[in-house]
Formats: sequence, structure tokens, C-alpha cells
Amino acid sequence: MTSLECPVPYTENERLLLGHGAGGRLTAELLESLVLPSFGPREGPLEDAALLPGSGHLVMSTDTFVVSPLFFPGGDIGSLAVHGTVNDLAMRGARPVALSVALLLEEGLELTELKAVLRSLGEAAQEAGVPVITGDTKVVGRGAADKVFITTTGVGRLLPGLSVSAAGARPGDAVLLSGPIGLHGTAVLSTREGLGFEVDIASDTRPLHRPVAALAGLGSGVHALRDPTRGGLAAALNEIARDSGVPVEIDEQALPVPAPVAAACDLLGLDVLHVANEGCMVAFVAPGAAEEALAVLRSLPEGREAVRIGEVPPAGGHPGRVVLRTAVGARRVMDMPVGEQLPRIC
Amino acid sequence: MTSLECPVPYTENERLLLGHGAGGRLTAELLESLVLPSFGPREGPLEDAALLPGSGHLVMSTDTFVVSPLFFPGGDIGSLAVHGTVNDLAMRGARPVALSVALLLEEGLELTELKAVLRSLGEAAQEAGVPVITGDTKVVGRGAADKVFITTTGVGRLLPGLSVSAAGARPGDAVLLSGPIGLHGTAVLSTREGLGFEVDIASDTRPLHRPVAALAGLGSGVHALRDPTRGGLAAALNEIARDSGVPVEIDEQALPVPAPVAAACDLLGLDVLHVANEGCMVAFVAPGAAEEALAVLRSLPEGREAVRIGEVPPAGGHPGRVVLRTAVGARRVMDMPVGEQLPRIC
Repeated sequence: MTSLECPVPYTENERLLLGHGAGGRLTAELLESLVLPSFGPREGPLEDAALLPGSGHLVMSTDTFVVSPLFFPGGDIGSLAVHGTVNDLAMRGARPVALSVALLLEEGLELTELKAVLRSLGEAAQEAGVPVITGDTKVVGRGAADKVFITTTGVGRLLPGLSVSAAGARPGDAVLLSGPIGLHGTAVLSTREGLGFEVDIASDTRPLHRPVAALAGLGSGVHALRDPTRGGLAAALNEIARDSGVPVEIDEQALPVPAPVAAACDLLGLDVLHVANEGCMVAFVAPGAAEEALAVLRSLPEGREAVRIGEVPPAGGHPGRVVLRTAVGARRVMDMPVGEQLPRIC
Repeated sequence: MTSLECPVPYTENERLLLGHGAGGRLTAELLESLVLPSFGPREGPLEDAALLPGSGHLVMSTDTFVVSPLFFPGGDIGSLAVHGTVNDLAMRGARPVALSVALLLEEGLELTELKAVLRSLGEAAQEAGVPVITGDTKVVGRGAADKVFITTTGVGRLLPGLSVSAAGARPGDAVLLSGPIGLHGTAVLSTREGLGFEVDIASDTRPLHRPVAALAGLGSGVHALRDPTRGGLAAALNEIARDSGVPVEIDEQALPVPAPVAAACDLLGLDVLHVANEGCMVAFVAPGAAEEALAVLRSLPEGREAVRIGEVPPAGGHPGRVVLRTAVGARRVMDMPVGEQLPRIC
């Protein structure tokens, strides 16, 4: 188990904060200090999906979706619940085999709304080629939940030839990003707050198992994959840097930030590096495989705008630290986000 | 897909009721009319767990737990979340291989309370011999959830020699029950309402994979298993009768109802046949295997009070109908519960 610097022991009467669920440092502390110790010893880094004991080639991942509002430009909680779990499997190098869907519904929900969510979920599953094989439906009284929460759990089969892990990044690796950042978080927030950006911004929510399958052709040249969801690109890069024990350097100018996203972040005081995405991924690949990996990604709609954003320095640097090289040549640490800037974004 | 008699098409503006989550007829209607059609075609009856495509021997099950209060005599939401999913796998004839745990937490929850829930969950998993291999933690704002909801998903491996299904009951089968009914629901309700029964009643929550593994020794003599959770014994028996297309007859006098449970049900106006259980199961076994199955169950602590409660008539009767033979020789239909008598019981 990778220990955090300064894990905070919780004191009596301490209460849960929204930030504990934000995917940043507070989440990591909660996991390391309270959640994971309850489940007994664990080996290796926290991955997006875990190997099923005894199977050798099957992985499992689970995610609860609480996004508000239920419908937003580019998607809804139903499609998001499929994409999120398919992507967690994909980031482990697996293609999705089956999904389970657990619905937690609030009394009084309009059935037409539920139907629209479920239709979208079913279509997303079909589009991703993964069957929903089992499920559960619970209803709680008014005020005990907020409309619809969905937990999807996926089982996936590891792609032959691909062996990726958050601990797999190595000195010299190129850091690739499959598409623009900041779309999902700003689309949801803009809809929720009625800010009007929603005409220009749509969530990037999409399944990523196809580009991952395409990358599998590069075999051992692909070292680490992660989709920058909660906590954004900053959290994803920091997790890989930490778990791999390598420094990471990113060129700020290389980061693809759509103009409407930049404008929304400026207005809202958000750091785009912390904003959740649901349809792009970072890939750490061997330097000799970088060009081919980029070409593979760009050949698919999901990776059409793939770019190289940085690298793991071949030597030197501070292991576990992510550094941003700015346009004017300055260098600043890209920290793990601490708490919550956008609650209920996924 | 088994079609219900008179599925109700939902009208515009119709809203979700608590009863839609109660495990009875309203739940079945919601599933058949709205939920399942969204997920595409399905073959065979609804089981507690579904076969993983392409594996041949692995099954998957998911369940969200919303019990209130979090702690009750005999258990808590943490242990219940393990037992419930282990049992769904067991009822399909599988031993648990791995669990995922998705936490949905309300801002402001006391961390000591969360810790107690997770410790119990971890201990229950360890006691059942199943590792928690992956998870997720989401936090929503105050008032958007009620303290702690837990979704557990389990993968299990089918026990060799055992082939059970809700559609497997046959004419002549003996109907066995592994222990007393009504304890879980009345324990939770009594605690919630402060009725004082909690000194005499404790939930029966426990894992049932060991008695199922023991029954596997009887091989093809075991036809159908189900744990009577939401909707109680009446729902479990009606589901098997419906999916197997057989009549079922139950002796009221043979039903093991603890005196404090009977008293609580009398006071609260509950039908004990509809009250949720979390630690007993019904087994439909070939007539020739009934005595041995009872002996096997009684040899284990989980089945110490196992009894024969009825049978599938060798001939005659109305397929899909469950009939209760009362003490005075009368016969009445044991209906599927319609709606909700005990919300948030599991």
C-alpha cells in the first residue's frame, strides 16, 4: 500500500465533508485512513479496476453516479453510468464483458424521467457492446435521496498483450492525452447553475475501450492509462506519478483546453486541471512507441485530438511530483486537488 | 421473459412509490414494464445472480442497501451488505469469490459512525471468506442522501454438481426452510420505531454460502434455492412457483415463527409472510433427497432449525399459485405482496 505523506488520523466527532468524495487529497486520506484498513491487507497500488482472484484475466470495477442534474449537454446519468465503468475497466487494459446496474430511487420520481435515464443507459451499454446482466432497484422516501443514483459494476477481460498499471510509468515515457479537457465538469456545472455556457460546451462522456483495444497492438510499449475523472487531469497524473514513483513534467501550452471551457473556468474560478472529464485518457508510453500510439489514437473518433502533453524525465526530478512547464518557461508544481470544487459532477 | 398477469403501462406524470422498491408485485411490474425493457432482450427467469457471459462458471449479483437505522439488533448495514450479496450468489449455487463496495455517503456523517459500519463490513467479508477487491466512495450534500447507502456487487463461482434455478422446481419436490422467519424485518422496524421488541428479537442476518455448499453434495436432488428477503417468504415462494410453472402448497403450522416475531407482527399489523429475512432460505428438493437435505442443513449452525414446510403437489393444482394450508384445514392463496409494508428494511 502506498502511504500518503501525513495521513490525518480522524478525531472524535469529525464529520464527512463534500471534499471527501471529490477524488483529491481528502478522498485519498479517507481511503487510506479509514476505508481501506477496514477491508484487510492489500497489495499494490489502487487501480481503477481489480483482478478477480483466481481468474487471471478478469477484472472488476464499481462506481456510483450521483451527477446533478440528471440530464446535461452531451449526456445524462444513464449513459455516464455505463461510460464511467467501461472506462475504469479500459484503464486497466480490459474490454467490458458484463455490467450490473443498481438503482437507488427517490419516492415521487417521475416515471417518465426514470424511463429516459434507463433508455439512455441501455443504449449506452448496447453501443459499448456490453450486456447488463443483473441489477437491483431500491426506493427510499422523499428527501432520503435525490431522484436517481446509479451504481454500475463491470467485469472485464484483460486484453492480451497489454499490461498497464498506475505503477507502470517509467523514466523516459511520453505522456499522451486522448482529447480536450474540462468539458464534462463545465458542462454539468453550467447546466446546474444556468450559466448559459451549455450552448457551447457538451460533456465528453464516451466509452474508451476501443482506443484502449487499439493501443493493445503496441503491447509492452504502453505502461499506464488513466481517465481523468473526479479530480481532473491533476489527480490522474499525480496518482500515476505517486504509484509509479516517477516525476512527471507537463507542457502547459500543449494542454488542449477548448476556448469555451477556458472562459467558463475563468468566470467560475475553476482550475481546469481539476475539472472532471468523462471521455479522455492519459497514456504513459515508451518513448519509441509514442508516435505510433498517437497515430493509433488519432485514427479513432475517440482520440482524434490526441496530443503529447509531456513526459517522465529520463533522469532527475522528484519522484511522485508533477511539474507544469508554463508558456513563459516557469515551472510550478501541479498539486493533487485537495477538496471539492464541483460536487456531484459524476 | 416471464410476463406478469396484467402488467400496468405507466401513464404520463405517474410517480414512483415506496412500494416500487418493496420486492412485491409493484416491484415486479416496474421491472417488467420499465427497467428490463431498457436493457434489451433477456432469456430465462430473473435470478438472484446472473451468469457472466463466456465464463461458464462465474455469476454476478448486485444489491444496494438502504436500511434505516444503520445499526440494529443482530447486525448493521455493513454486515448486511456483505451477507445480502453473498446470499444472492449462494442462491444461484455459487460460492463468493470477490466483492466490490460502493459507498454513497451524506455530507456531515460522523466519521466514527462510518468507521463502525466499514469495520463491520470488513469483518463480515473476512468471516465469509470473500475479499473486497475494489470500491468507490461518493459524497453528496446534506439532505441528498440519508447517512450511508452501500452497493455491494459479488462475483461467485458455481459449485460443481449443483444446478439450481428459480425455474428448477418440479412436481413432487419437498419445500424446506432453513430457519425461522420474520426476525430481520421486525428487528429493524422495532428499533426504528422504538417499540421495545428489540430486546427479544435480533436480525437473522448471516451468510448462507456454507449450507448451500453442503447441499451441493446432494447434486441434482436440489432444484431451487431462494432467500426470502424483501417481500418475505410469500415473494420468494411466488417467484419460484411462477418461474417454475408449478403450484406450491405450504403448511401454516410448519412455519417457524418465533413468539416475539408473532407478537410484533400482531401489534404492527404485519403479515409475517411478507416480512424480510436475511439469514434463511427456502430449498426445493427432490422428494427422495428431502430427508438428507434436512439432515445436512441441521448439521450446520445456519440451518440448525431447518424444517419441511410444504411441497409441490405431484399432480394437480394451479401452476404459479402458492396455497397455504391452515391449521383448521382451510386453504388460502398466499399472494405476492403488492406494495410496501416496511420501507428501508435492507
